[in-house]
Amino acid sequence: MGDSIFRVTGRDAASRARTGVLSLPHGSVSTPVFMPVGTNGAVKAMTVNDLEEIGFEIILSNTYHLYLRPGTEALGAAGGLHGFMNWKRNILTDSGGFQVFSLSALRKISSGGVRFQSHIDGSGHFLSPESAVDIQALIGSDIQMQLDFCTPWQSSRGDAERALAITGEWLCRAKRRWEEIKAETGGVRGGSLFSIVQGNFYRELREQSVDACIQADTPGIAIGGLSVGEPPEVFSEFLGFTASLLPDEKPRYVMGIGTPGYILDAIEQGIDMFDCVLPTREGRNGRVYTRQGSFALKKSENRLDFLPIDQECGCRVCREYSRAYLRHLFKTREILCSMLASYHNLYFLNDLVANARRAIEENRYGLFKREFLSRYNKGAL
Amino acid sequence: MGDSIFRVTGRDAASRARTGVLSLPHGSVSTPVFMPVGTNGAVKAMTVNDLEEIGFEIILSNTYHLYLRPGTEALGAAGGLHGFMNWKRNILTDSGGFQVFSLSALRKISSGGVRFQSHIDGSGHFLSPESAVDIQALIGSDIQMQLDFCTPWQSSRGDAERALAITGEWLCRAKRRWEEIKAETGGVRGGSLFSIVQGNFYRELREQSVDACIQADTPGIAIGGLSVGEPPEVFSEFLGFTASLLPDEKPRYVMGIGTPGYILDAIEQGIDMFDCVLPTREGRNGRVYTRQGSFALKKSENRLDFLPIDQECGCRVCREYSRAYLRHLFKTREILCSMLASYHNLYFLNDLVANARRAIEENRYGLFKREFLSRYNKGAL
Repeated sequence: MGDSIFRVTGRDAASRARTGVLSLPHGSVSTPVFMPVGTNGAVKAMTVNDLEEIGFEIILSNTYHLYLRPGTEALGAAGGLHGFMNWKRNILTDSGGFQVFSLSALRKISSGGVRFQSHIDGSGHFLSPESAVDIQALIGSDIQMQLDFCTPWQSSRGDAERALAITGEWLCRAKRRWEEIKAETGGVRGGSLFSIVQGNFYRELREQSVDACIQADTPGIAIGGLSVGEPPEVFSEFLGFTASLLPDEKPRYVMGIGTPGYILDAIEQGIDMFDCVLPTREGRNGRVYTRQGSFALKKSENRLDFLPIDQECGCRVCREYSRAYLRHLFKTREILCSMLASYHNLYFLNDLVANARRAIEENRYGLFKREFLSRYNKGAL
Repeated sequence: MGDSIFRVTGRDAASRARTGVLSLPHGSVSTPVFMPVGTNGAVKAMTVNDLEEIGFEIILSNTYHLYLRPGTEALGAAGGLHGFMNWKRNILTDSGGFQVFSLSALRKISSGGVRFQSHIDGSGHFLSPESAVDIQALIGSDIQMQLDFCTPWQSSRGDAERALAITGEWLCRAKRRWEEIKAETGGVRGGSLFSIVQGNFYRELREQSVDACIQADTPGIAIGGLSVGEPPEVFSEFLGFTASLLPDEKPRYVMGIGTPGYILDAIEQGIDMFDCVLPTREGRNGRVYTRQGSFALKKSENRLDFLPIDQECGCRVCREYSRAYLRHLFKTREILCSMLASYHNLYFLNDLVANARRAIEENRYGLFKREFLSRYNKGAL
């Protein structure tokens, strides 16, 4: 499938943690990388200038949401999402499958695709592996995901097998459609397609799924079907197990990971990419991250506390505003509170991942992770 | 009262419009000037960087709100509002009187001051002309207002007279307290005190009130008691009448003026300063200003309209985002919509006032006003 988009640049001797570089249409991306989520083509309470200032090289957006609003006609007329939202760096999109399963009503899955009703107005829609690729190509995604079939925690082996069979079939169809688009547009459209490992919590099925992904030989592979209700130790076990099966030369992406602990665990398992809505959602809820754990802005101890959120943080919010002011903004429900807290939380996670990259390059990732989490978990309020 | 803070720099030959410069502790301010409102010590959905980028030299904040939240203890500990909110330029505060009358429950006015209940938690408070000065000095206001007693449209002559008598008494007491603070702090605290003209809609009472303000010889004079329910033509008549009585050498401020039409009328009457919550409130409601009138972002014509809000506007939002994208943000209730629409509306008004200043200097204010309003009102949707 042409040149690889990924190059490993460093490895931690004591773990599977690694650094790398993704070469994408809108610039290169250093990995491990945390990707902020812009569900509707906007990272909540953040401007694209804010995102560039922090240094993000890639963000995620959701195909399901964009397909419903603004819709393919507007996205097509805008020439894709980059121009529409004025974001000059890379965009990864999911396939929409996960949202169809989690948000929409009356979904009906067949091997042809999935019929669903919009969670906004109840209108009926159909998503196939091919149309998911088409929509993501229209969006102008730099990295796009195959349509997959995700099953919940405690699915039966039979259900998991059937879902996996469909996921595998959809991968082949997605890849075929994606190759057509690449051929038709001389490689300009379509970005890089990632396959998705499913198989629920059955090791054998995970192995089968990884084999199918390896065989499809897409530019990258995502681990799906986690964070679907399972206990943390099961999540961790299956993340580690699945990651260990993946080919070394491809970028590995796990969806929906956003707390420092989960991020550092995933990096240790050799994961290169992750995303989560948590930093901006917690920011809007007035919860902010520090090296000593997160805390709620509203707590009364902040009333006369003129220190920054985190004294070791170099972000604009920590340089310019106090806990007392941010508490006041939270109490008076000022939008500025969401803006500043989201900015800080995203900066914090981006900084955490940058420090993780340095630690890997300097072969001290285990120590870095232990030290960070020991402070972070001790101080958590 | 020491050196004047105001210098007239230009005059329109055909009207009372004039340009000037206010010399204040946090820099000079070119007049006529529109001041954005930061009720709780934050201009809604705007960072201080945004305000500086647009070029605002002064903002307004509300003593009533700040007194209740964060309260005087926090403001005192922060060393005032400038440091608390990280705003390096000037701040004008009202006295809190207007909010006591409009927001709080169970207010009881005596000549001593006003007893009221917080609109937030019902707690009891007392505001006197002296404490209003003290609180504004604690806030660190560059321009502060005397406590005044505002009466509604259609007040009886007797009610208007009694309120005016109290306003006059409160002016003397406010001035005495303000002079004490200036003396105690070697002029560092207290900023510039403005008196406020009341008198309801009785010409004689307005004249009496202006006389009292002239006699008090404060650094500036505000016209109060307008926009209290009267028809537009009465507003206009009494604005013009009151303004015509004011001494030429002092800055003149009218509270709560925020639409292009009202702003340009006020400038024509020789008003130097005005403020309003409208541009940010309308921004949050998805209404944006253009040279052809304002429009609602949500209107369906914007769905595939990739032009900026206003093609003649030089603001960051108009350079970077389309109507179609902003409509999408509005429909998906993204906070970014409030941020961008507020930014544009404030930029638009600041630009309007800057153009008015140029027109006055070039002695073509009447033409400028006519041309602007003819396009603005014709296109209004």
